[in-house]
Parts: sequence; structure tokens; C-alpha cells
Amino acid sequence: MRRLHLDEDRAFPAETMARDAARRIYAATRHLPLVCPHTHVDAGLLADDLPFPDPARLFVTPDHYVTRMIHSAGVRLEELGIDGLGDQGNARAEADARRIWRTFCEHWHLFRGTPSRFWLTHQLVEVFGVATVPSAESADALFDELVDRLRKPAFSPRALFERFGIHQLATTDSPLSSLSGHARLRAAGWGGRVVPTFRPDSLLHVAHPHWIAETDELAALTGMDTGDYAGFVSALAHRRHVFRAAGALATDHGHASADTTSLSPAEAARIYTAARAGRATPAQAAAFAGHMLFEMARMSCEDGLVMQLHPGVLRNHHRGILRQYGHDRGFDIPTRIEFTRALRPLLEAFGHTPSFRMIVFTVDETTYSRELAPLAGAYPALTLGAPWWFLDSPQGLRRYREAVTETAGFYNTAGFVDDTRAFTSIPARHDLARRIDAGYLATLVSEHHLDLEEAMDTAIDLAYRLPLTHYGRRPANAPALVDSTPVSTASRVTGKR
Amino acid sequence: MRRLHLDEDRAFPAETMARDAARRIYAATRHLPLVCPHTHVDAGLLADDLPFPDPARLFVTPDHYVTRMIHSAGVRLEELGIDGLGDQGNARAEADARRIWRTFCEHWHLFRGTPSRFWLTHQLVEVFGVATVPSAESADALFDELVDRLRKPAFSPRALFERFGIHQLATTDSPLSSLSGHARLRAAGWGGRVVPTFRPDSLLHVAHPHWIAETDELAALTGMDTGDYAGFVSALAHRRHVFRAAGALATDHGHASADTTSLSPAEAARIYTAARAGRATPAQAAAFAGHMLFEMARMSCEDGLVMQLHPGVLRNHHRGILRQYGHDRGFDIPTRIEFTRALRPLLEAFGHTPSFRMIVFTVDETTYSRELAPLAGAYPALTLGAPWWFLDSPQGLRRYREAVTETAGFYNTAGFVDDTRAFTSIPARHDLARRIDAGYLATLVSEHHLDLEEAMDTAIDLAYRLPLTHYGRRPANAPALVDSTPVSTASRVTGKR
Amino acid sequence: MRRLHLDEDRAFPAETMARDAARRIYAATRHLPLVCPHTHVDAGLLADDLPFPDPARLFVTPDHYVTRMIHSAGVRLEELGIDGLGDQGNARAEADARRIWRTFCEHWHLFRGTPSRFWLTHQLVEVFGVATVPSAESADALFDELVDRLRKPAFSPRALFERFGIHQLATTDSPLSSLSGHARLRAAGWGGRVVPTFRPDSLLHVAHPHWIAETDELAALTGMDTGDYAGFVSALAHRRHVFRAAGALATDHGHASADTTSLSPAEAARIYTAARAGRATPAQAAAFAGHMLFEMARMSCEDGLVMQLHPGVLRNHHRGILRQYGHDRGFDIPTRIEFTRALRPLLEAFGHTPSFRMIVFTVDETTYSRELAPLAGAYPALTLGAPWWFLDSPQGLRRYREAVTETAGFYNTAGFVDDTRAFTSIPARHDLARRIDAGYLATLVSEHHLDLEEAMDTAIDLAYRLPLTHYGRRPANAPALVDSTPVSTASRVTGKR
Repeated sequence: MRRLHLDEDRAFPAETMARDAARRIYAATRHLPLVCPHTHVDAGLLADDLPFPDPARLFVTPDHYVTRMIHSAGVRLEELGIDGLGDQGNARAEADARRIWRTFCEHWHLFRGTPSRFWLTHQLVEVFGVATVPSAESADALFDELVDRLRKPAFSPRALFERFGIHQLATTDSPLSSLSGHARLRAAGWGGRVVPTFRPDSLLHVAHPHWIAETDELAALTGMDTGDYAGFVSALAHRRHVFRAAGALATDHGHASADTTSLSPAEAARIYTAARAGRATPAQAAAFAGHMLFEMARMSCEDGLVMQLHPGVLRNHHRGILRQYGHDRGFDIPTRIEFTRALRPLLEAFGHTPSFRMIVFTVDETTYSRELAPLAGAYPALTLGAPWWFLDSPQGLRRYREAVTETAGFYNTAGFVDDTRAFTSIPARHDLARRIDAGYLATLVSEHHLDLEEAMDTAIDLAYRLPLTHYGRRPANAPALVDSTPVSTASRVTGKR
Repeated sequence: MRRLHLDEDRAFPAETMARDAARRIYAATRHLPLVCPHTHVDAGLLADDLPFPDPARLFVTPDHYVTRMIHSAGVRLEELGIDGLGDQGNARAEADARRIWRTFCEHWHLFRGTPSRFWLTHQLVEVFGVATVPSAESADALFDELVDRLRKPAFSPRALFERFGIHQLATTDSPLSSLSGHARLRAAGWGGRVVPTFRPDSLLHVAHPHWIAETDELAALTGMDTGDYAGFVSALAHRRHVFRAAGALATDHGHASADTTSLSPAEAARIYTAARAGRATPAQAAAFAGHMLFEMARMSCEDGLVMQLHPGVLRNHHRGILRQYGHDRGFDIPTRIEFTRALRPLLEAFGHTPSFRMIVFTVDETTYSRELAPLAGAYPALTLGAPWWFLDSPQGLRRYREAVTETAGFYNTAGFVDDTRAFTSIPARHDLARRIDAGYLATLVSEHHLDLEEAMDTAIDLAYRLPLTHYGRRPANAPALVDSTPVSTASRVTGKR
Repeated sequence: MRRLHLDEDRAFPAETMARDAARRIYAATRHLPLVCPHTHVDAGLLADDLPFPDPARLFVTPDHYVTRMIHSAGVRLEELGIDGLGDQGNARAEADARRIWRTFCEHWHLFRGTPSRFWLTHQLVEVFGVATVPSAESADALFDELVDRLRKPAFSPRALFERFGIHQLATTDSPLSSLSGHARLRAAGWGGRVVPTFRPDSLLHVAHPHWIAETDELAALTGMDTGDYAGFVSALAHRRHVFRAAGALATDHGHASADTTSLSPAEAARIYTAARAGRATPAQAAAFAGHMLFEMARMSCEDGLVMQLHPGVLRNHHRGILRQYGHDRGFDIPTRIEFTRALRPLLEAFGHTPSFRMIVFTVDETTYSRELAPLAGAYPALTLGAPWWFLDSPQGLRRYREAVTETAGFYNTAGFVDDTRAFTSIPARHDLARRIDAGYLATLVSEHHLDLEEAMDTAIDLAYRLPLTHYGRRPANAPALVDSTPVSTASRVTGKR
């Protein structure tokens, strides 16, 4: 069985001068606390603090980066422990964790050159101390070793949270969530700082299959009448208030497009009423979603929640996969996206409001240098989020800095977010980002664009200070830096406010 | 006259550590046989096995990479030996091969930094042993040397095929081709493995100027009635069968868009009938082309031919060039292309069918990380083809690996295809690809993402095993990995089958 | 106070072998004269030859690269000396140059990793000999040092022009300009070669707020009747003639799209008449702009002015900024752009005309390898301009060569243009471009694609010979290299000529 190696210089540039600088820069950030303002970790995981069940359910079944790659080689999702939804007569999911783990180990070579390989290796070696290369031969022994580790108290979720040095962790939650996991965590008196994030996607998309039911649920939860648009908006504002009181710092929005065109209150109400009656057209649904992004920005100006937007993914590309296996199975595929025109209404209105901060993510790299860096390099309220999803990889992180920095600088970027539901991969992801940023800065040093001292200072900003600042509480409503009423829409916007 | 140098380390990264690794990785693939599943070589060239006529007709006139570059500097195409079509009163093409060659040599500097320079240098030095830098001064002596070589039996097409170590070579052929070149080759009892590829573009585009004539020819060739849609489809299936029997492994499709939306049989038949009467609208022609891609995929599930798609080029951008000089004169220009939505119908239906393999090429690099790598990293039937056309260059090959690997890995890529009509450039093209892949893998090694042994194994996969696998015969029709009937089109699709 | 360092090896690749080659290549171009065929310098600056007023008005207030970045951090534009237009009741602009300079120095860290940092450092150290890092602490002393320098005759505009070694400088001018600055310069008998450039954007866009007034002004200036389309075209041709007589080499066109579809004379006249009556629709305005690009190309074939096109920027993204502070305040944001189809009408008609040269710029990098390099690598009349605006940065310049060279070579690129209104930054910008080109060529040398001698020769071409050639006077009208009448539009185009 071959030894799994985690090199001290991994992910640094190979060139000697840059590598030396990278080592020194990385040393300045390596042990900084982890700021995690955007994750998909379940608060219940930390509230319950139960041991992780087994290696398959920790590393394989729930990680769509892993299952999609193995599936792309022709392995059925059931073999990876993913349940068919049952009503289609599918083969049932593999229940034997050891067999799932074996399938994973046999396909280890598929991950060559991918970030999953980096993250998995880091977890095995650093987090679990299991330095064996996964393979058909090593699978069983590795499984047993990992099961042994997982039983120990030192590997419980809270113990790992503390060992990882997590300064703060934000989960992602539906406005309809009772936030009971968070309440239990607070009640437990445990010290770790875990806060919710307000993610209202399904409530803002009237074509969502459960939209009517969710608006009903929103009424029940808030005691407000969501039968009309005004009540709906009030109920959303109320839930934002509840989230903020529970410590939330931000909202999060995944839309098909970045459109932020606002509608008149009358138009919005008309669409809302049609949607409640199940009669909204696709064009109305799209217009309403864009309008609601504008409204969310308006509310953020009032309550100070940072607004995160990550548009441009066609979810559930294969609808048969959705039917048989549910969401998040690896069939969410990016599409081309446009920001310059789409964000204009929102940025003209709120782009200079000191109480407003918008952080934008993309999986369309063409927008980095063409649209997002110029926009973030102009509007005070706009910040670029970290490379997202498919792009939080060594080359993806590097291309992001290369495309963005020359126009937007470092200080219009928000720092790294791990964006993960794989809790034990959090330190690996931050480590990779810190290494790539160190390497990028080292290249600037070795090409004499920066001196080493500045590079180290910048690295600390990127790893620690910037995410705290950009995701920090906004000041109370303050006068905008410029008059933000667009000529052409002045009367309408004024009317809406 | 300056000496033309072919450095042992050409196209490797300059950095010492990566270069050392690149040398060792390249050594593992350097002498592997060439797998050529996608070329534009004429089978008749090998069947006839006549000597190449002269340097101009070997290196200049037929190579649109070469003629377009010299033409862009203001040299008339006639001076490069390209015939005007005669009815426009043009100057006649230069007939003196020596003068054409001289024009080429005088413009050698235009190729600095281009892959043509790499391929031409490789051919001159390695294939023909003529190590002189082309220039006005050296042109005549070089011409004489090359003519001398070309007369020798060791430089006949078959002798070169053997010397090049070509394992297998696929030509590209019209469904209307009698495949007589292939038949003569087989009859000759020569050992080289040369197979046809089924490329039906002109038959699938009803707006093609010769479409009606070609459908008539298809009828004559198959004895089937192509007067209606059903007969047309049967005749195509029949020709696929003939190609398969002649050894074909794949089909090949060049479309303006990647659309694969299927039509109902009735709609398809209606458009077909209109087209036969010369009355199909441009919208109908486009819809029919998309539908026929879907149909080609359906047939591939049945007969196992691998389906290659390379969309997104506007052919004959300058229609005057087309009229005066014909096709393939350097005026085919890429356009932006979309895959995520366009391939959805095809992939929902056949993306999990074990007997189906689709290989997609693009000249729009923005789709690598945004659309193609995510799609190929999810769908078992989808594989990314090699960098195509303008992109099979040192930087183009490198950018492809950088953009694709982190999401799709190495094993969802199909390996290199040379895609050339320039027969003597085949080893140069494979050599360049092997060098760039070695360099890319070496960078992963020197940044500690891979160990050297894995990198060497991967290099052999990319150069040899993967093209054999991905272009290999598919298994007989097998049950799909998932239920592939989209909700919204279930009844229609079922009806169509 | 920390010392500002300008390293001899700045912007070169760090890798030893490539760096050595870069040094030698750069040495060949370092002291070549500066060719500046595209600037926004005011001819009056050199005609008046007054000292620059102070550091704030030299480095900060007029440079939108600088003001946008500081503004993006939440600093009001007024604090940077930018005047509100007064009618909005804004805070008045800061009048104290020392305080503006201090604000700038306090935000020096924002420029880490940006080209502004490179240009500013070069100016401070090389041009003004002030080698102190700007900071809150050093601001006042630096201000005093710079004021001291600016008072000296050696730092007057003309003295700097001569010291910079500017071979030729083209300004950018409205067709309505009297070119009085140029006339005064000529009258002064000063030797520096300064020529105007014909930039008619506002006259070609009928929706421009001052369009009617400008067409009236055009009539007054030329004595021609611009009440109808024919008179308008004649007046434009006349102004082109005047510019040409004043030494102009080129025209310059900033359009929202690259569309060049020509209209029939009757259609063009109809739109013109509607526009004069204030009744042109947005669609008509767009069609007219495209048509006028075609017309400008036609006129260039006749008068030999090189045609520059740089489309794809949404000007004044925040209309409130425009109202309060005017144009060019950092809120011009790029958009996606298309060239393949858009340039087709123009290139089919004039792409082979020896008296015509078109130079195209883009801020959409996706078009480099996909559209522009293939087009420039085919059409004799088309040349790629230097990386533009946000892209004339170290990485931007490098990505340009990487994306363009393999398809278009070096000789279809026009060499560097500084495109700046910041006069004292001109040598810094050329120096950066020469360093990056040296580094790119050095990488080709160290990867054995070029030998050092060729690389040095190419570097001299890029820095000096190519801009002189591509922006040089075109030959008199000559027969096209091919018949350029498109089939489908033959009668119409013929009719139009």
C-alpha cells in the first residue's frame, strides 16, 4: 500500500524564487483562524454533536463533487449510496458502507488533477492521520482505520470545529426554517460561533413547484397574510428580522439570471396575485424574481444584511436524475451570464449606499475581467466573492486573481468562502486558498510588482481581515455617496419607495 | 543559411523542476504508436501510394493554416498555387512549384509563435532531414533537397505511415462516398489500419446548395426512396451500416449550433417534404439540423458508432473567397457557442446509455470550464474531444488542460486527435500534444498535486489508452444507467421511439 | 518613510532562463523612440507648454483609473477634486491640492497588483526622481518635492515630450474641433510631431443628446448643408480631408456594438431625416451607427485614414454619476461583444482593399482567440490593436499575446498604444508593454519555439516597426486582392457605390 503524501510546498509555484516567497507569505496566514461566512453545514450537526457514521457517509455519498466524477465513469449513483426516490422502481441504494467506500477507492485515479483529490488527501492525512493512498487493495484497511478514528471523541463535530480554529461559521437556511439547530446550539452553551444565512430562493421564484405551499407556510410562521404582495413583502422582512436577531450576517441568492429590474408595486402585486392563483407566465416569473432581488437589496439597505448573489446555473440539467435521486447530484450545469446590464438597476439605486454591501459570485469566468472587476472597481457597495463551485480549485483560484486583481485590486474582493456541506473538508479548502493566494502574491513579488512585506500584509487581509470586514455588520442607514435616482426611472423608483 | 534546430526540450516548461519531470513523463509516451481517430487524410493517398509531387503541393497549397497566414499579409491566394474557380476572370494560380515555395520561404517570419512553425520545423528536420531555416536565400536549395527526398521510396505515403508508427487512422467521408479508396487499400493487402468516418453534414442541412441532389444520390446509392422522411432516415441508417462494415468507428458532425432538440416524426416529415420541394424556411432548416443530431445519437445507441460533434464555426465568412477559390481557404471563423441548453435534449435521452459515446469539440474556449467540463464530469456518455483547429497549439493545448481537468479530470477527455489533411504533419502534431501534456502533468508534479509515477501513467492514458477506449466499439444496446425520459417530453419522446 | 523601488527586472518572468532572455530582448527595445498613434493628450497642453499645476491635478483628479479605485473604497469623488456639476446641490469639490494628494497617498495600498501602481511608481521614480512610497506619513513631503520638480523647466510638457523620446503622438479630436491646438503647435515651430485623429462618435449616433446641435455645427464649420444625409456625408468627408491635411493618420470609433451592416442610401437618408426631426427610434439609431461604420470604412479606402474601432463599453453605467460629475468618472463598464458576424459586411466589402487598414480593439478577452485572431489571420486589411483600457496591464498584455499569437502571429498585431490622457505616464506604459512582450518572447525562446535573435527582431517590430507600418499612410486606392462583392448583397452594394 502506497503512502499518501502531503507536501509542505503543495500548490506553490515551482519556480524557486516565487516558491521561497510563497513559503514566507503562507507562513503568515497558515495558522490564522478560519472565517466561514458561507457554508452549507447543518447547524444540527454541531447541536447534536454525534460522531460521523462511517467513511462512506462522511466522504462519498453526500459530496456531489465525488459522486458526479465516479458516476461520469459509468457507476450507478445507487452504488455510491444515493437513494432512488423509490417510486420509479430503481435498484435500491447500496447500504453497505464498506462497499461504497471500496467503489470510491477503486476510482481514486479519476480525481487526478482535481481539487477533490487535494481536499480528500488533506482530510485523510491532516484531519484523520490516515496516510494511505486509496485503492482496491487498501480500501478495507483504510475503512477500518477511519471507523476507528470516527469513534473517538476527538473527531466529533464540535471537537473538530475547535481544532480547525473556526472563528465563525454561517449556515444556509430557508426563511421557513425554525432555526432550531441554531437555538439548540445556543442553548447548549457551547462557545462556537454559528450563525444562519437567509436564503429565500424558493420563495422568490413563483414557478417553484412548492411556491404556493411555501407562501402559505410563511403566513403560518409569521402570522402575516401572504395572500397579497404587501403581506408577502412584510412577512419576508419579518423573517429577515428574525434571522438577524439569530445572528445572521447575510442573505444568499441563487438565481438563473442576474437581472435586478424593479417593477412598480402595482405590477409586482399583479404578478404575485396571478402566481398565487397558479397562473403566472414564465416571463412574469422571471420578472418577479428580478424584482425581488431589487427588493432584497432595498431591505438590506435597511437591515444591514450583506446580500450575496450567485447566478447562472441551470439546476437539474437531467430531469430524470432529479426525479430518481433528488437535488444536488452533480447535474447542475453553469450557463453564460451577464452582469453589466443586469445589475444596473440595483447598482444605480443602491451601489453608493453605505449600509449596503453586495457580494457577487459567478461560474462564468469570462465575466471576471470584462464585467465584475470593472463593476467592483467602481461601485463602493459591490464586492467580488471568492471563486465559486467548480472554480475553487488551484487553477480556478489562480485565474480569479489573475483576471480580477489588475482592475479591482485586492480590496474589492471578499476573501475566501468554502461554500461546503463537507464539514471536515473546511480546513483543506481554506488551506488551498491560502496557498494559491500566497503563490499569486509571491509571483507579484518575484516579478517586482510588490515587496514581500506588502505581500504578507495583503495575504493576511485576504485570509482574515477582508471576510470579516465585507461580511461584517453594515452601518445603520446612511446618506448615499451620490444621488442614486436614475433619470429615466426617477419617478417610478421614488414612487416605489 | 541558418540551421533549423529542433530542441530536445521544445515545448516543455522552462522551469527546471518541471522540465525535468516533463522529460521523464514524455519519455514514457514519445515512442508509443499514434492513434489517429479523426483525420482528413484521403484514403486514396495510401491506396495509390504515389510520391508527393513537390514541396509546394506538400507543405503550402493544401494547408489552410499556411495559406491564410501568408494571405493575411497581402499575398494573393493565386501566388500560393490556389486556383481561382475560373469564371470570375481572376489571375490564374501560380503553376511553378518552386515560385510558390519561394513565396512561402520569404514569409517564414510570419509563423513565429504559431503551431505551424512547430509542425513545419518538425517535418523538415525529423521527417525529411532538411535542417535549414526557410528564407529567400535558402528557398531554392531547400526546394531541391526536398524534391530529392520526395522521390525516394522511403518517403512514399505508406512508407511514412509505417515509419510514423500509426496504429490506426480514420479518414472523414461523405455518406455518399463509395469508400473506393478504402476498398482499394484493403484489396492491396497492405497492413495499415485505415477506416472511414461517417460525416453527413450536407445531408442534414436542408439549406445546403446541393441538398436535393445529394438526397437523390443517397436514394440511388441505397436503392431506398428518399422522397419522404422515413425513407431518408432508413437510407442514412443503411449507409451507417455500410460504413460500420467498412470498419468505421465514428460519425462526425459540424453544425453551426449545438442544438439537439428533437421534433415529432410528423414535424420532421413536414419539414423534410418542404425541403425536398425547395420551400423550407431558415428556421425550419435549423430545427431540422438540430433534430437530425438527436436522430444521429439515437442511431449511435443502436449501431455503436461514436458521435463526434464540433459546432460553432461560420464557414466561408467572405463569400467572395468561396466563389473564387472554393472551401477551406482560411475564411472559416469561430462564433460564440452554447452547449448547456443545446445538448440537454440529447443528453437527457441518451447521456446514460452504455452503447452511446459522444465526443464534443469546440473553438470557443469559454465553454471549457463553464459548460463542457461540468457536462462531461457528470454524464457517462459524454467525453471532451481534444483542442480543436485554432486551439491545437502549445498554449491552446495547455489552456485546455488547465480549464478542463479540475472539473472533468483526465478520464473524461478523449485524447489527442490530429484532425489534419497534412499527412506528413501527423507525427509533429502528436509530438506537440504529448509534450504539452507532459509539461502540464510535470507542473502538477512539481506543485505536488501528483506523484511522478501517476503522471507517467496518466500521460500514457492520454496518448494511447484513452483514444483507443473512447473511440472504441461500444457495447451492444444495454439498459440505461438511469431512466432517461424527461418529464415534460415523455409522451412525445416515447411516441417517437 | 519607505523607499520606492523600481527594479531593473520588473515585470519579467521570474524563471531564470526566461528572465535572462527577457533582459536581452528588452535591451533591444528599451531605448527605441515611442510611437504614440492613439492618445487622449490635449494638443493645447503642448502648445501652451505651461507647467503642470500640482501633484493632485497631475496624478489624481484627471486619471479615472485612480479615482475609480479610491472611490470604490467609499471615498466621495469630490474629495478627489472632481467637481459636481453644480445643479444637484452636491458638496463642492475639494480645492486644496495638498488634501487631495493626501487622500490619494492614504489609499496607496488599494493599487497593489494593479497597473496604476506600476505606472505611478515609474513616474515618481523615473520621471520625477521622487523615490518615496506614498503614505499618510509621506504625503506632505512628497507633495512638496513634486511641486518643486513641476516648477522646473525640465518638467514642462515639451521638455518631457523630448526627454521621453516621443517619435510621434496622435491626439483624439472631434470632427468639430478647430484643431487650434495643433495649429498653434505648428505655428510655434516646435519640432515635436503631433497629429490629430478623427473621432466622430457623437455625430454617428443620432441618439446622442447633442446630435442635432452637432450636425448644425458641422454645417457651420464646413459650409455644407447637413439638413439631408448626402450633405452630412459630404461634410464628414470634408472634415476628414481637413484632418488628413493636418497630419491625421487615423480615425477612431467607439460604438456600443461592432455592427457594420450597410443600409441602402435611401434607408440611410430616411433615418437621417427622422433623426434631424428628433424622431429616430432606438433601432434606427443603432442601424444608422452600424451603417456609418461601413461608410467610414468606404471613406478610408478613399482617403487612406486608418480606421480604429473599439466597441463594447456601456458608458456611464450609473446615470447619477454622469449627471453629477460628467463623463469618464470610472463608470464605463464593458459588455460582451460579437465580431464574427458584426464585421462581416465591412470585411466582405473592404477586407482585401490595399488602401484600407482597420485596427480593432476589445475589452472582451473571449473574442481574442475565438474571433479576432482568426479574422486578423485571414483578412489582409484587418489588424488587432493593443490590449485596451482595463487590459493594458501586465497580465492583460500577457494574456493578449498568449491568446492571439498562435492564430494571428505577431505581424497581424499593430503594436502598443498607450491610449492615455495622463501625459507623464506615457513612458511607463510603453515600458510595461515592452517588458511584457520581452517576457512573452523570452518564454518562447526558453521553450524553444524561437531563437533569441528572432525574438529580438520581433520585439523591435512590436515596439517600433509595426505601429509605424500599421498606422502609416495607406497607398492610394488600388484594386482589391479579391472580388469583394458578396453574392447576396451584390446589387445593393453596387448601387450604393
